[in-house]
Amino acid sequence: MQKVNIILVGFGRVGRAFYELLKEKYDYCRERYGLFLELKGIIRKSGAVLLSGTGKLVTAAESPGGKPSEPSNWVQVFSLEDLLEEFKSGVVVDCTPSDLKTGEPGYSLMRTALEKGWHVVTASKGALVAHPAELAALAREKQVAIKASGATAAALPTLDVGLHSLAGAEILAIEGILNGTTNYILTRMAEGLSFSRALLEASEKGIAEPNPVQDIEGWDTAAKMVIIANRVLGTEIKLSEIKVNGLRGINEQLVARAASLGKTIKLIGRCSRENPDAPWKVEVGLALLDPDHPLAVVSGSNKGLIFYTDCMGYIVLTGGKSDPRGAGAALIKDIISIYWRDF
Amino acid sequence: MQKVNIILVGFGRVGRAFYELLKEKYDYCRERYGLFLELKGIIRKSGAVLLSGTGKLVTAAESPGGKPSEPSNWVQVFSLEDLLEEFKSGVVVDCTPSDLKTGEPGYSLMRTALEKGWHVVTASKGALVAHPAELAALAREKQVAIKASGATAAALPTLDVGLHSLAGAEILAIEGILNGTTNYILTRMAEGLSFSRALLEASEKGIAEPNPVQDIEGWDTAAKMVIIANRVLGTEIKLSEIKVNGLRGINEQLVARAASLGKTIKLIGRCSRENPDAPWKVEVGLALLDPDHPLAVVSGSNKGLIFYTDCMGYIVLTGGKSDPRGAGAALIKDIISIYWRDF
Repeated sequence: MQKVNIILVGFGRVGRAFYELLKEKYDYCRERYGLFLELKGIIRKSGAVLLSGTGKLVTAAESPGGKPSEPSNWVQVFSLEDLLEEFKSGVVVDCTPSDLKTGEPGYSLMRTALEKGWHVVTASKGALVAHPAELAALAREKQVAIKASGATAAALPTLDVGLHSLAGAEILAIEGILNGTTNYILTRMAEGLSFSRALLEASEKGIAEPNPVQDIEGWDTAAKMVIIANRVLGTEIKLSEIKVNGLRGINEQLVARAASLGKTIKLIGRCSRENPDAPWKVEVGLALLDPDHPLAVVSGSNKGLIFYTDCMGYIVLTGGKSDPRGAGAALIKDIISIYWRDF
Repeated sequence: MQKVNIILVGFGRVGRAFYELLKEKYDYCRERYGLFLELKGIIRKSGAVLLSGTGKLVTAAESPGGKPSEPSNWVQVFSLEDLLEEFKSGVVVDCTPSDLKTGEPGYSLMRTALEKGWHVVTASKGALVAHPAELAALAREKQVAIKASGATAAALPTLDVGLHSLAGAEILAIEGILNGTTNYILTRMAEGLSFSRALLEASEKGIAEPNPVQDIEGWDTAAKMVIIANRVLGTEIKLSEIKVNGLRGINEQLVARAASLGKTIKLIGRCSRENPDAPWKVEVGLALLDPDHPLAVVSGSNKGLIFYTDCMGYIVLTGGKSDPRGAGAALIKDIISIYWRDF
């Protein structure tokens, strides 16, 4: 039995889903993995809140009800540093919104956490895209983990498989559909909708984020592929170096034309190299897939990834819930994987 | 840097592939994982052979050339016990042929290895099907691992994903195409071949084993599903308790009829329960899949598995080389996973 202190930073859609799921899974994680996953504090822009061991909210002001979903109940009492000092060791869970250029605010908070010897589990892409080598070196120095399932297709186990299930094999290329919004749009366009109609539908269904520009332009796919490549292949690819084409230029005629050729248009992120001595490169763009391509069947807001290897053939992963609850589950999985072994 | 002693038992198709791949991957495993994977001995029915650290064969008789593929070069000098004593700790790799009823010879050799505190990595289903609880308890007592990727779809990471990538999630059902031979036969029958013609082709291509009865009758699928269920769900399902229907009764008419309904016939292993309080049960049999079922696209000798979960949606795995080299790679992966962490 082991106690794991958890500090959650960021309380948007994913942070809340993580918070709810952690309460729901507390007993299960204790029984199955021998881990007491204790949420000690939540930090958000508008304030920080400290929880008791049972997950009951204990704000400094002992606010009535203490519902974390009501910002009026939050009181700025603790900084991240205070909480890290107070609880000594554990996991900082980063659910802050990403800035892909600066990596902030994740970059600063991850550095603070790693410096103090805390593990980091993140749903946030920014810091890992902007400062991958520095953060990896710091984690190595402090002998703690940075786990990023939540930032790289969440419930679909891209990093687990790439790092662990393919251990010993050499990866020849990685190819994936990594963005639910654009795949939903392309799927609906193949069914006859216009781009704008399909986008509207994706927004109405809560698949597309309020501002879907990063998704539509391919940057979300690019960021995920860069994180996967850097972790799994040990590369140091920068987002600024790579060729990213999103859905720009797509229209009903193109989609119909693809269908008439028996093909499917998908937004594909790809990491490959021309030969074993050439540098790895990442590209994002529309691709025409044959019907027997393993990613051709990935429809709607689903995601999919293929690892091509030297001795294990190719491994295809598809599915995995792409909503906040799925992301929350991926964060919990990453925490468990830091502390639990199956023997 | 860590030295890992390896003793290989069994030198059939998979054992040989493992042996070759281990030589090929020696440098890579040292550089990437800091592990010296040292094959110290190979034991087979006709004799045992001891290797030097570099993988060079050193038989007692210093046989010329020392090729392990030539049985005349093998000398019976060491028993498993001798080698375990000599090298103190490490991994025993079991590549012996399976007897699903008695679990032998794997059962005895696994017990011997575990008793002496050695980890076991196996490509052999028998022992895990016949004596799962006893072996698991022994491994727990000795705090060593039994890793069985090689016995449960090899390069397709069924156990990794079920145990680790879904940690914290509850699995609601598992469904899979786990046998390459029968899936190849059904694929070719859908393309117009008769059963016997398709089987002949599978044999000629080296997909079907010399005696494919266990595959055709569904017992191979059943054994793999039982191992996956017992490991991932913590059940203690016995092969003798479950309903197994293989390809018996299949014919061209049935396959054509399915196609006329727009469906595909697949041999599916399934583990499910009627409600969360009901016992888990495993079934194997032919199923009609809709074209959008994730396993409908699994063709030829490929395999596929779906985990249905409570909070991660469903995760689909397909692909993974199902030849001896893929199995050898899965064995190496399992060894690495015992010793290597990514932080």
